[in-house]
Amino acid sequence: MQDSKLYVEENKQRFLNELIDLLKIPSVSADSAFKDNVLLTADEVAKRLKEAGCDTVEICPTDGYPIVYAEKIIDKNLPTVLVYGHYDVQPADPIELWHSPPFEPVIKKTDFHPEGAIFARGACDDKGQMYMHVKAMEFMTSTNQLPCNVKFMIEGEEEVGSVNLGTYVKNNHEKLKNDVILISDTGMIANDVPSITTGLRGLSYVEVEVTGPNRDLHSGLYGGAVANPINILTQMIASLHDEDNHITIPGFYDNVEELSLEERAEMAKAPFSLDAYKKALDMEDVHGEKGYTTNERNSIRPTLDVNGIWGGYIGEGAKTVIASKAYAKISMRLVPNQDWENITELFKTHFESIAPKSVKVKVTPHHGGQGYVTPIDSLGYQAASKAYETTFGKKPIPQRSGGSIPIVSLFEQELKSKTILMGFGLDSDAIHSPNEHFGVWNYLKGIETIPYFYKYFTELFK
Amino acid sequence: MQDSKLYVEENKQRFLNELIDLLKIPSVSADSAFKDNVLLTADEVAKRLKEAGCDTVEICPTDGYPIVYAEKIIDKNLPTVLVYGHYDVQPADPIELWHSPPFEPVIKKTDFHPEGAIFARGACDDKGQMYMHVKAMEFMTSTNQLPCNVKFMIEGEEEVGSVNLGTYVKNNHEKLKNDVILISDTGMIANDVPSITTGLRGLSYVEVEVTGPNRDLHSGLYGGAVANPINILTQMIASLHDEDNHITIPGFYDNVEELSLEERAEMAKAPFSLDAYKKALDMEDVHGEKGYTTNERNSIRPTLDVNGIWGGYIGEGAKTVIASKAYAKISMRLVPNQDWENITELFKTHFESIAPKSVKVKVTPHHGGQGYVTPIDSLGYQAASKAYETTFGKKPIPQRSGGSIPIVSLFEQELKSKTILMGFGLDSDAIHSPNEHFGVWNYLKGIETIPYFYKYFTELFK
Repeated sequence: MQDSKLYVEENKQRFLNELIDLLKIPSVSADSAFKDNVLLTADEVAKRLKEAGCDTVEICPTDGYPIVYAEKIIDKNLPTVLVYGHYDVQPADPIELWHSPPFEPVIKKTDFHPEGAIFARGACDDKGQMYMHVKAMEFMTSTNQLPCNVKFMIEGEEEVGSVNLGTYVKNNHEKLKNDVILISDTGMIANDVPSITTGLRGLSYVEVEVTGPNRDLHSGLYGGAVANPINILTQMIASLHDEDNHITIPGFYDNVEELSLEERAEMAKAPFSLDAYKKALDMEDVHGEKGYTTNERNSIRPTLDVNGIWGGYIGEGAKTVIASKAYAKISMRLVPNQDWENITELFKTHFESIAPKSVKVKVTPHHGGQGYVTPIDSLGYQAASKAYETTFGKKPIPQRSGGSIPIVSLFEQELKSKTILMGFGLDSDAIHSPNEHFGVWNYLKGIETIPYFYKYFTELFK
Repeated sequence: MQDSKLYVEENKQRFLNELIDLLKIPSVSADSAFKDNVLLTADEVAKRLKEAGCDTVEICPTDGYPIVYAEKIIDKNLPTVLVYGHYDVQPADPIELWHSPPFEPVIKKTDFHPEGAIFARGACDDKGQMYMHVKAMEFMTSTNQLPCNVKFMIEGEEEVGSVNLGTYVKNNHEKLKNDVILISDTGMIANDVPSITTGLRGLSYVEVEVTGPNRDLHSGLYGGAVANPINILTQMIASLHDEDNHITIPGFYDNVEELSLEERAEMAKAPFSLDAYKKALDMEDVHGEKGYTTNERNSIRPTLDVNGIWGGYIGEGAKTVIASKAYAKISMRLVPNQDWENITELFKTHFESIAPKSVKVKVTPHHGGQGYVTPIDSLGYQAASKAYETTFGKKPIPQRSGGSIPIVSLFEQELKSKTILMGFGLDSDAIHSPNEHFGVWNYLKGIETIPYFYKYFTELFK
């Protein structure tokens, strides 16, 4: 195969400019104010896939944002790789914590990225990582060495739970038929410690509303005599963990996969410094479930986190009010074998059951997805491992991630194929946070590595 | 004395129009965006006091909003009444719950106000009640029957803790010298059950900030492994009450005045329907400290209420984020003998002590004030009681209120005089809430009653 490293080197500036242009479009799927920009991004992605050599490119409408589908079929007897990614991004707030505007990309050096990183919402999650695949495709088609068939399915609703992708996948089994699914939407341990994500957590995301009195009240006249929905909400949420930080929802742990001590010992070999971790986040101590290490807590154990809470007067100054309502957004990260719909139901039943008679409670499920584990003896994993070894000079470490890509287990169920998670981001890239960024080195390394996956997968497949 | 009832009847429409004009100015002291309007309100109040017959009218600058001072001294040998009120109002949010715009007053009938009520922010608290005194003054001067000296001190920072009034009072002992202080900023039991507030609760208002990691994090990658400041904040707040709804801050109840069973039995005689109370607020049950009735919980017992809470993602849709910071505004209503500065310190010490090592906590005191009790054998109380009896046809009931007017105990300390709380609002008037209103009947009844206080106080004083 002609050297992808050389091609990347020669086209580096153009590759960066093209990504920067894509990052300038604020495709925030969670907020309808950005609707036009989300749609514009879909058009742009379709255009770029065409330019990268795809024969067929379609913008497929859904009940929400469209799915961009593209393909290049060179020989029905050769294997087919389905690339999945998303063109939507997380909301940028809190905006005031960004050092540069989230949709005006800039390249700056960081401790982890001495060669510079692109700062912008979506830089790593997932526009930058998705676009590596578009540019790898360009390399393979323009140098006439695409070894197999390729399909692209790039959606615009990943950050809001892929609400319409499931239907699309279910209705398009034949069109999406493939031998392996390839996704870059995860990270690796470090630039000199390549790793491949083999496990993902599932997710259940709910919103809760607690109503006390039917209107806001003066806290002097009513304080102490009526249920304050904020106080009650804090008590209800606090009771969801016991003092060992176990989750108290009955049945929550019933199906949790317990890893053997051997497996846990294997995991513990991954390089990790608790001191560096605490220092990087400026915390005097970590916090989590008793009996598990930090790396276990954020990968093989389920969690319950409040992602947002609000109620009462939150403006400048003081207001002595008892609010009528208080709200929280709560997400649970799940491990393989925990069914997200079952967990959502357990949460709802429990949360309603612990409400005192003095308040009314409403639990609204937002979205969710199952956890996933990729076997390391699969063809896809082996091909990916060899690809990293070729470009990084060392074998990647298989690693469980705490994040969720809920759609992955649906792919396996519907399309009967395995997903390989070739992520090139770093944990420190601040995805979902202010100042999200993606290393220039990582972006280019991804474009360089992906073509080798195609090569090795096609070879192993024969 | 010439009949105030007749004068009120003849001038009813003008009195209403003048109040409505005043209510149109959004004098929200808590939000600096309203600064010009707060200042404009001070000018307007000064103008109206002049028109009502005051000889001297001053707009006294402070480090915050000015205090409007006015006086009419007719004879140094006669007693002097100091009227206190405030021209600032609470923030109007949540705006979307108002049935008519908060600063566009309308008159509508309600169950409690069959003759109509003026709906606007500040209608009852305190522009409407403060303006009753201006119009009572007009009656007495224009009919040439003011029986004593009068001083007015109308401030613009009551809703933000009267931050600059204390200094003003301390620096103006001679100017503010008086024999009794008169305030209409409380309520009465019902239009056919007149009552005078004899006790007020004190207040300590604080803001807390809990910091976990130094930046917002992805809840998949970090969830379960770091302290989520929202989860921690809910645990810390929840722990401030035990299961009997006693407050758990060490030392909190040390100085709480315990009423005798006789006194509690006396209180219990006030008309009260728990069913009607629950129905009015659409609650299946009340909620409060074990061992006390609803009326005791909101008057003679101290409380701790969260007035606002916020953190993380609170926009539309879902965001899987672990926030760096979570916040709450918390107020404690105090009873006589609890010192608010001491309680603030106890809160701060306790709240900091219960924080786990994995977070940082900051407690910022906002403001506060002492509780207060008016003796019912004082001249002022006797005069007020006779005034109500004259215009309502029945003796008013002395009643403890759960609200706070922190400045009242400062008045006693600095000016050595007793405060009489002649309130004409109803608990259902929704002060501090959307759709605040003040009964037209109550407004006019106040103007009618106040002159009799002057008459009886001057007679009793001799």
